[in-house]
Amino acid sequence: MQDSIEQYMQTVGQQARQASSILAGASTQTKNNALSAVYTALENSESSILAANQTDMTKGRNNQLDSALLDRLELTPTRFKDMLQGLKDVIALVDPIGEITDLAYRPTGIQIGKMRVPLGVVGMIYESRPNVTLEAASLALKSGNAIILRGGSEAMESNRAIAEAVQHGLKVAGLPESCVQVINTTDRAAVGQLITLSEFVDVIVPRGGKGLIERITNEATIPVIKHLDGNCHVYVEAQADLHKALPIALNAKTHRYGVCNAMETLLVDEKIAEDFLPRVAELYAEKQVELRGDAATRQILGSTVQTATEEDWYEEYLGPVLAVKVVSGIEEAIQHINKYGSHHTDAIITENFSLARQFLTRVDSSSVMVNASTRFADGFEYGLGAEIGISTDKIHARGPVGLEGLTSQKWIVLGDGQIRH
Amino acid sequence: MQDSIEQYMQTVGQQARQASSILAGASTQTKNNALSAVYTALENSESSILAANQTDMTKGRNNQLDSALLDRLELTPTRFKDMLQGLKDVIALVDPIGEITDLAYRPTGIQIGKMRVPLGVVGMIYESRPNVTLEAASLALKSGNAIILRGGSEAMESNRAIAEAVQHGLKVAGLPESCVQVINTTDRAAVGQLITLSEFVDVIVPRGGKGLIERITNEATIPVIKHLDGNCHVYVEAQADLHKALPIALNAKTHRYGVCNAMETLLVDEKIAEDFLPRVAELYAEKQVELRGDAATRQILGSTVQTATEEDWYEEYLGPVLAVKVVSGIEEAIQHINKYGSHHTDAIITENFSLARQFLTRVDSSSVMVNASTRFADGFEYGLGAEIGISTDKIHARGPVGLEGLTSQKWIVLGDGQIRH
Repeated sequence: MQDSIEQYMQTVGQQARQASSILAGASTQTKNNALSAVYTALENSESSILAANQTDMTKGRNNQLDSALLDRLELTPTRFKDMLQGLKDVIALVDPIGEITDLAYRPTGIQIGKMRVPLGVVGMIYESRPNVTLEAASLALKSGNAIILRGGSEAMESNRAIAEAVQHGLKVAGLPESCVQVINTTDRAAVGQLITLSEFVDVIVPRGGKGLIERITNEATIPVIKHLDGNCHVYVEAQADLHKALPIALNAKTHRYGVCNAMETLLVDEKIAEDFLPRVAELYAEKQVELRGDAATRQILGSTVQTATEEDWYEEYLGPVLAVKVVSGIEEAIQHINKYGSHHTDAIITENFSLARQFLTRVDSSSVMVNASTRFADGFEYGLGAEIGISTDKIHARGPVGLEGLTSQKWIVLGDGQIRH
Repeated sequence: MQDSIEQYMQTVGQQARQASSILAGASTQTKNNALSAVYTALENSESSILAANQTDMTKGRNNQLDSALLDRLELTPTRFKDMLQGLKDVIALVDPIGEITDLAYRPTGIQIGKMRVPLGVVGMIYESRPNVTLEAASLALKSGNAIILRGGSEAMESNRAIAEAVQHGLKVAGLPESCVQVINTTDRAAVGQLITLSEFVDVIVPRGGKGLIERITNEATIPVIKHLDGNCHVYVEAQADLHKALPIALNAKTHRYGVCNAMETLLVDEKIAEDFLPRVAELYAEKQVELRGDAATRQILGSTVQTATEEDWYEEYLGPVLAVKVVSGIEEAIQHINKYGSHHTDAIITENFSLARQFLTRVDSSSVMVNASTRFADGFEYGLGAEIGISTDKIHARGPVGLEGLTSQKWIVLGDGQIRH
């Protein structure tokens, strides 16, 4: 079995590599035609895709999957419509491939520039959401990359039905169907193979729980674009405008709980803590957010607030819980964030120019904000059109990863017969 | 022993991480002051550095190191002067850190942009050349990164003497000496530790033979910026201007043999092979370059030319040997390059606009050239000022890696109290 999976993955990899070299040379028109044909194919197969999803849902219920997972798995007609809208948005994006920048003469007379090119083959590993199948496939195609998709076993039928429509679209547009391949086995050995297929796969993008991503990062021999944690902070500085600080503190925590750009720790400057904390605590109480505070916070808010332990500062709650700490100033705030944070997204609320500038420079996170909610850290909000994931790595792509994160640049040199002396 | 090396490397890593957070906030002025102080310290210790190098040389001769390695190891007064000039060049480079680009409003009213930041800590692993110690340290400092240097054991004394001067300079400028650390053990276990110190090291840059780089790539759990091979091609297309093709073919092969951007295979279009091949063969004969040809080449040049085997197309000779193949046109040339090449640097010689455009687009290499010698693929020639290496990877940095390759970008968001709806 192990052997046959190895062979199967080799074949998938080889086909992806071949398809990628055709895709790399495909014109914007061809790629958009393919995506439009995918759109039509999906529209036409709505009922069969939703039926496939219901098969997954029934199996999931029988296997007693938890309700959060079942919710992520389900494709309703509304979600299907959103999925199609997302595809339309990708079609409308500017094609990054082939763009030549910085073309300039050197003293030798040669011209040097950079041309944007696809990475080649993307390996995408994700959990239950079937809409990721289409998102990832459409971003890969638009950026000229072949993609190998390995979704969660619980979404197998949904993913297969979506992929069928995608491949139909590719065929209509005259592109190889192996531009988008779905791994057809639930054997976990297939993941182990995929993340070490360095001959055929250029980058791995995992999306899912921390356990999945840690395993992939440790075992992969191919570069991985990933984020592990979203432990985001809002620091309400002493010169904050509380008319901004209060709504932002509320929004960053309660707009959605289960997302990586939600605030998990609130830092409050000691000079305003006595004024600010009771007011913000009232807002959180309305939303039934549990607070866990340091000693100073508990002194102000009362001992009904739980004591925050050292672990709380590291925690990504992904739920209605918030750690709160009173800090002596920007120095302590920055040090706390750089130490306990996950380098995802952190914000300062202040009217002080110099402190804002200092925070922007010294906080070592993929997104650093002044007077805005951490919830904005998102490919759509940043104008990337869509995102294949959010990276907390520093290498290659950082923060929301859109089309550009799926590309590289090569140097081009134009000469007139120059030789080197 | 293993334990104590692990502990030692942990300490080195921790110190580097601490130093990097200070360096990341250092102004351009501070960094340049440090580099200038390093310059002075090196000037003042010339005699002791050259003496340390002589100790290495004597030991090397006693250990019967081969002459090529001894040549790379030796620091002559001229090479020392060049080293200092390289440092001056780095001081003159524009500081990339802190640059904010693409700052633009989104419909929500927030402004989104990108700020260039250091990677953090660089782990540099290299072989015998002691000048790499200074090059790598100065590029790292200028780009705000701490660096851990692991040079070849044969250059231990030279590297230590150079590092001493560097650390003296750091001290004078008020920066932590642990911004630049030299591993003080020749135990290979230290390398194994360095490439897995993911908590403290952000990127590994190996420079050396293929064996070293392959080992590091396979074992590293940290991203590696590397190139394995430089199997470069020049394709002389049918519409080539032979007044350009002949000097370029000669220059790309014979300007220097042991370098990664030297041509290793010459591809000649069949329509001009009978005219071009005898003329270029004459030039190579003068330089005593051995040719290995396919059947068509041997038919034109005679059977004194050795037969090229399948292995020859993959070979990086790094010497006065050249594989020669007659191809039927651009399609065969591109397929040959993408199959056998190492994705380093490849050139087409042609006067035909459309074929040049096609070659630039379809050849999947870090540098693709028209009518110029492959020897130009170099950080200095490209205007980067200096390079820490050349990357044939597609992730993060590709081609010559200068200051920018040692940086990343974070997103910055400037708001006025915006929350997400």
